[in-house]
Amino acid sequence: MTEAAAVPDQAPEGGLYQRIQQFYARQMRLLDHGAVQEWADTFTEDGVFDQNVAAPLKGRVDIAAASQKRVDQIVADGITRRHWLGMLEVDPQDDEGVVRTRYYAVSLATERGAVVPPRITASTYAEDTLVPSEGGWLVRYRRVTHDGTV
Amino acid sequence: MTEAAAVPDQAPEGGLYQRIQQFYARQMRLLDHGAVQEWADTFTEDGVFDQNVAAPLKGRVDIAAASQKRVDQIVADGITRRHWLGMLEVDPQDDEGVVRTRYYAVSLATERGAVVPPRITASTYAEDTLVPSEGGWLVRYRRVTHDGTV
Amino acid sequence: MTEAAAVPDQAPEGGLYQRIQQFYARQMRLLDHGAVQEWADTFTEDGVFDQNVAAPLKGRVDIAAASQKRVDQIVADGITRRHWLGMLEVDPQDDEGVVRTRYYAVSLATERGAVVPPRITASTYAEDTLVPSEGGWLVRYRRVTHDGTV
Repeated sequence: MTEAAAVPDQAPEGGLYQRIQQFYARQMRLLDHGAVQEWADTFTEDGVFDQNVAAPLKGRVDIAAASQKRVDQIVADGITRRHWLGMLEVDPQDDEGVVRTRYYAVSLATERGAVVPPRITASTYAEDTLVPSEGGWLVRYRRVTHDGTV
Repeated sequence: MTEAAAVPDQAPEGGLYQRIQQFYARQMRLLDHGAVQEWADTFTEDGVFDQNVAAPLKGRVDIAAASQKRVDQIVADGITRRHWLGMLEVDPQDDEGVVRTRYYAVSLATERGAVVPPRITASTYAEDTLVPSEGGWLVRYRRVTHDGTV
Repeated sequence: MTEAAAVPDQAPEGGLYQRIQQFYARQMRLLDHGAVQEWADTFTEDGVFDQNVAAPLKGRVDIAAASQKRVDQIVADGITRRHWLGMLEVDPQDDEGVVRTRYYAVSLATERGAVVPPRITASTYAEDTLVPSEGGWLVRYRRVTHDGTV
């Protein structure tokens, strides 16, 4: 999507917490709008996306491939997906700028034609390790636990 | 609602991002609590509220009239409506304080008696142009795209 | 939960608004993860938790007892509960650091096995009075109004 390129990675000012809020807003918009490669690029080259309901995705190549497959399926199904993150906690780890976060996330799905109301498809709890990069962050490790599965 | 008047437009301190979060929280509370004129006053005099599912509302007078009609309907139906905005991105545009934002928004409806659970009535993606006004902002242009309609 | 202890009460930097966002994120995670005593300790010793659908809980002892009962029920039912707070407004009251807040909150429930989608069990509007404590805050008074009940 062309709109993705128009926005800087992070707001030019503000405290750590709000910059990370903006990081997540952009990151998940990229995925939800189908910009799969840009989404994968918000992870480190060897970043891990680990969900308790599937085998962990290791590295940008795998993350992009799996995400593209999922996006294609969602498009084929005529669904708009929106990831909401909230209840964010930010915990700086060290002098190198590494940050640990915790948050809740839900996934919403709306079907084309909006005959049925939007529905919550997943409620999750997540923890990230973020590393600094070019004034912003990259996800080095993400662990997502889906409610109702443990 | 008398409570609406008791709160300043923005928090007296803090970075741009969080001040805009507070702006939106107040703005949508005004609408959800039926303070239609105060809600309309968060737009510029000639502000545009453009949704892809209806003709654009142009100016405070039209915004207030359409919103009052909707609020009356919701009250008649015995519904409490709550607009949640999230996944906010803030992008300052220039030295005059103009700010562009992007965000997700959902509308929740709860029926009187709470016999059925609250339901999500709409999931949307929105972009605003905000202009500075008296230490806060006004919406000059809002574009809301409803999921499932395009 | 051991994870609860690893996180400081508030982020070490940043403006008032984001520090309160982090306060609420931690507070509700404690409850949602069953750390009932730590949740109760986010209220003042004589703090009041007042919901319009039940008798007010007065003091940490009562808050902890009632919350433990509810947590036990939820665990017995095989449900994961998540409280989301949003649309936060922060309004500093005085030079002593007292802060009034308003926000929306929803409660999500996900059943074990995830056979049915997560559902919103309550939509509410809340107002808190927070008092400063050891660099963070405690809730002195919380009033929650459930949509659909008034």
